[in-house]
Amino acid sequence: MAEVTETVLADGLKRIQADILAAFDELLPVPADPRAQLFEAMRYAAMGGGKRVRPLLLAAVAEMYGVDREAAVRAGVAIESVHVYSLIHDDLPCMDNDDLRHGKPTVHKQWDEATAVLAGDSLHCFAFEVLADPVMSGDPFVRAELIQVLATAAGSHGMAGGQMMDIVAESSTFDLQTVTRLQQLKTGALLAASVEMGAVLGKVPHEGRKHLRAYARDIGLAFQIADDLLDHEGDEEAAGKALRKDADKGKETFVSLLGADRAREQARMLVDQAIGHLAQHGKEADLLRELARFIVERSH
Amino acid sequence: MAEVTETVLADGLKRIQADILAAFDELLPVPADPRAQLFEAMRYAAMGGGKRVRPLLLAAVAEMYGVDREAAVRAGVAIESVHVYSLIHDDLPCMDNDDLRHGKPTVHKQWDEATAVLAGDSLHCFAFEVLADPVMSGDPFVRAELIQVLATAAGSHGMAGGQMMDIVAESSTFDLQTVTRLQQLKTGALLAASVEMGAVLGKVPHEGRKHLRAYARDIGLAFQIADDLLDHEGDEEAAGKALRKDADKGKETFVSLLGADRAREQARMLVDQAIGHLAQHGKEADLLRELARFIVERSH
Repeated sequence: MAEVTETVLADGLKRIQADILAAFDELLPVPADPRAQLFEAMRYAAMGGGKRVRPLLLAAVAEMYGVDREAAVRAGVAIESVHVYSLIHDDLPCMDNDDLRHGKPTVHKQWDEATAVLAGDSLHCFAFEVLADPVMSGDPFVRAELIQVLATAAGSHGMAGGQMMDIVAESSTFDLQTVTRLQQLKTGALLAASVEMGAVLGKVPHEGRKHLRAYARDIGLAFQIADDLLDHEGDEEAAGKALRKDADKGKETFVSLLGADRAREQARMLVDQAIGHLAQHGKEADLLRELARFIVERSH
Repeated sequence: MAEVTETVLADGLKRIQADILAAFDELLPVPADPRAQLFEAMRYAAMGGGKRVRPLLLAAVAEMYGVDREAAVRAGVAIESVHVYSLIHDDLPCMDNDDLRHGKPTVHKQWDEATAVLAGDSLHCFAFEVLADPVMSGDPFVRAELIQVLATAAGSHGMAGGQMMDIVAESSTFDLQTVTRLQQLKTGALLAASVEMGAVLGKVPHEGRKHLRAYARDIGLAFQIADDLLDHEGDEEAAGKALRKDADKGKETFVSLLGADRAREQARMLVDQAIGHLAQHGKEADLLRELARFIVERSH
């Protein structure tokens, strides 16, 4: 049984990684003019790796509700674009000042800071270009709702707000409640949006999305606790990026506040709870179940 | 006659400036949590000045087609948010490295670079949050089209692409055609989107927008030539920002390529041509006509 579901996850990851890569390749051709460097930087960041957890979440939910694969992949490209833009800007010297991402030079190291700012801005905008295009969905209700969900999750009430809290965290002492709120915004909002966008594509009515939202909330928090554990215990080479930077900056994390053992226990509890929210579904939710387990068991 | 139309413009500017300021104030309350600094920076940049040319263009077109003022102001907030985000990022040390904007410290001088990156990102996203909100328009076709127009104009095929060309211009020698293309993207795309979004709100069919697009194209180019002239001849104090930076960096401009006299002549010719495109309209297009003249005659 474990083997079967692991194959479900391995297949799901492999398939979405190939589909997202092909879609970026198709949607971001490099123009033969002085803008070429911008598009090369966008492609470098968007096609340079990443597990594609957000597109997989989106596609897994969409598939449960019979959504056409191409639509799920397009919406996946949009949410991944927002994720990638946030990494480019996060890596900038004035933010986390990271030189490596997926084991390769970050965009500002490969080119320069101006190109990194613009490539991030362009991928951010590209997400909305993709979602607003009538090719995305013939139904303007669906297009407008996809955009509303993504924009709300990405902006000052979501991811960007969480990043601001993360900066403030360096000069403050946050308690567990504030760290939880920070992580819900910084990481959880976009993971929750992935699930929600799958439900929007599946035209699931709002009352039918409650269990999916509960699932998303739990895996979002579990994901961040797992990230903190990996940051605390992980291997820099396997991660392809610098680790233990939070501790160096004196920022509180789930691990610093709870200790590694209780944090690990908390993450596992959240995953069990997340899987519990899927009780009404049969085999068609196996990918979401395996994905929840993968989130806390991954090694990078 | 000149006095009457000048009053049309002066009133239009005064009214849109007040409306946009009030809308930002209402839509961007500062939360009582560690994200406060992000919202303060967004408000500082969005409410700190600016002529509001883009919202005025949008509202002027919308009003010609009987659009509700509140909807025009909301869409105006969205396009102004994109404009303001681009200024925040443009002013960063890695881009234009400007210390002053509207006569006040730029966001990264007032706070820091990280806050400026995030405030820009948040205003960028906020534009799409505003447009995707059902409060914007009850018609999802309108919401989706507004977003498509704005996203296309702001991203790598529009403004951000033009900014990349602008960076490349420092180390290349662009001819008049390439400088024209650069400016069409960097400045023209967002001005054209302002006009187009007014037409979208007015539900003007595509074939009925041709003359408006021609008007927008002409004033967009005239606007940039006027900017180059102001940069060449203007007063730093009146402008509230540093001038003559293009020449210092060896970038070609309309003035460097054409000379000031021919550039001025070209701008006036474009304004006449823009006004000519409005021949089918009566008095209701006076604001657009005056706005076209204002664009080349403004002193900052």
